[in-house]
Amino acid sequence: MNDTPKFAVIGGGSWATAITKMLCENVSEVAWYMRSTYAIEHIRLQKHNPNYLSSVEFDTEKLRLTNDINEAVAYADYIIFAIPSAFLSTELEKLTESLDGKVIFSAIKGIVPETSLIVGEHFHEKYNIPYDNIGVITGPCHAEEVALERLSYLTIACGDQRKAKVMAKNLNSYYIKTKISDDIVGTEYAAMLKNIYAIAAGIAHGLGYGDNFQALLMSNAIREMKKFIRKVHKMKRNINNSAYLGDLLVTGYSVFSRNRMFGNMIGKGYTVKSAMMEMSMVAEGYYATKSAYNLNEEYKAKTPIIDAVYSILYEGKDAKPVFKKLTDKLD
Amino acid sequence: MNDTPKFAVIGGGSWATAITKMLCENVSEVAWYMRSTYAIEHIRLQKHNPNYLSSVEFDTEKLRLTNDINEAVAYADYIIFAIPSAFLSTELEKLTESLDGKVIFSAIKGIVPETSLIVGEHFHEKYNIPYDNIGVITGPCHAEEVALERLSYLTIACGDQRKAKVMAKNLNSYYIKTKISDDIVGTEYAAMLKNIYAIAAGIAHGLGYGDNFQALLMSNAIREMKKFIRKVHKMKRNINNSAYLGDLLVTGYSVFSRNRMFGNMIGKGYTVKSAMMEMSMVAEGYYATKSAYNLNEEYKAKTPIIDAVYSILYEGKDAKPVFKKLTDKLD
Repeated sequence: MNDTPKFAVIGGGSWATAITKMLCENVSEVAWYMRSTYAIEHIRLQKHNPNYLSSVEFDTEKLRLTNDINEAVAYADYIIFAIPSAFLSTELEKLTESLDGKVIFSAIKGIVPETSLIVGEHFHEKYNIPYDNIGVITGPCHAEEVALERLSYLTIACGDQRKAKVMAKNLNSYYIKTKISDDIVGTEYAAMLKNIYAIAAGIAHGLGYGDNFQALLMSNAIREMKKFIRKVHKMKRNINNSAYLGDLLVTGYSVFSRNRMFGNMIGKGYTVKSAMMEMSMVAEGYYATKSAYNLNEEYKAKTPIIDAVYSILYEGKDAKPVFKKLTDKLD
Repeated sequence: MNDTPKFAVIGGGSWATAITKMLCENVSEVAWYMRSTYAIEHIRLQKHNPNYLSSVEFDTEKLRLTNDINEAVAYADYIIFAIPSAFLSTELEKLTESLDGKVIFSAIKGIVPETSLIVGEHFHEKYNIPYDNIGVITGPCHAEEVALERLSYLTIACGDQRKAKVMAKNLNSYYIKTKISDDIVGTEYAAMLKNIYAIAAGIAHGLGYGDNFQALLMSNAIREMKKFIRKVHKMKRNINNSAYLGDLLVTGYSVFSRNRMFGNMIGKGYTVKSAMMEMSMVAEGYYATKSAYNLNEEYKAKTPIIDAVYSILYEGKDAKPVFKKLTDKLD
């Protein structure tokens, strides 16, 4: 691999669109895979993604748009996956091209439902990608603010720090600052766990709890996250760094977060099923909750917030009494 | 002092009103001092504070209202100060009653401008109150949500844990949960520093930075707060507990915070002087900034956010370039 590697972005959603935009600030060409041929045609003709961040204008000369995932994978040295975790397996089944020697970055904030693994682990276990070729791109970063070119910070984690630096350098711009990390497991778990806490924040809001409780909940959530991640992968990390606490806050306080919205509906009395039907796409935190809960049967970290969300989403418990009990466990 | 001590609340503002309400849930009588005889008459007749949290109805049978601070002090065993720090010295000058043997709780989130001391230190140094008789009542807690009886959590800190427990017990109710702590210095500094970070959040918002940056700023603020407080008083504390991180978040994310509003005006281009004139009362964080900055000349903690706010508020620097520089120091 040379000094100017080739990049591919997998996904046509808002986060994939934001990452493609960031890369276009630095490189002369980006392969961009998405399923929809309509969206591809629209971008070619109108220079905008018709479905997400449609205010972002692309220099289409730079885009190698394709609806064939193998074409994107064959082209690139660094492949960034930015699709909902629920679609990852289906997309990967299409692969005929080998991933050998490719550097895989996950910009997916969730768990692969079929394997209950975080994305990095999934690639490692199912595709034999060595951890030195696996990385994570994490926030605090809403795609919408990337579209507006509002200053945002990313953490780029990879076992191989040289590769983290390459990715960081190519995402940097006047509105994106990057920081590198070697904590691929911790940053990815944080990105996944925060979605559960965003659901909890939404449930609390839906039940009528106020801002005082929201602050208390976030203060408990970061302590719970720290305990959980430490059990999964013990290493020296400052849980208050932006990849952990910052990412939790930007999601937990966002009224646009799909996870928070999902929780809010449940707090307001929707059943889990009807809340899911109401939303065009399942919130990442839904799968994350089950996976974190199951994992924790082994780790046995004290996670009252995850337990409460789990019992509401998967055991049919009523949100109101569950949260009433939860409030006694927080401090 | 017996098992059912007598309480006095000093102050007629929203936080004093909220604390009086909390006490009235538990005790049969509370002395309540405020300057305004008009407000006192209004409360007596209408059962509501006309100026703050006017939705709260008091059982006036329980209130010993007075505009003589000495009467309130003479009456009580536990005295809760809940006035702006800028007025504390003036009020204390009126004292002819002795504070000997009284337990003093500070619900003031700021620095005494005349002495640059936090309230506990001020009482200790100027009135020889032993630290075992000094306590702190801290959030995360907006008074407005106490009025609405929305579940809120308080931390009650006192060198003497027995006294912390007494205070906690008498503030507890179905909408208030309390936790005790022995970190009077740390909790009070946290309550003061968070106002500076709320000003910073306001400036950032006023300058057009978005939610991604806000989350990043809070993540940096809690790390900076930890370093600062550790220099002031080193002890084992979890900075992510609600008295520190929770209190920072409830203020930093509140659009109603006076400190955040003050910062927002400055970010939007008001001069410090005109922003202060625009507000009916000086934001606590204004004094806190100077005091923290001066203290830190001795402690030398790395505090880029406090330094940035100081240079804008006290050195006449323009917010835009100061924050541009600050963004390079955060991560």
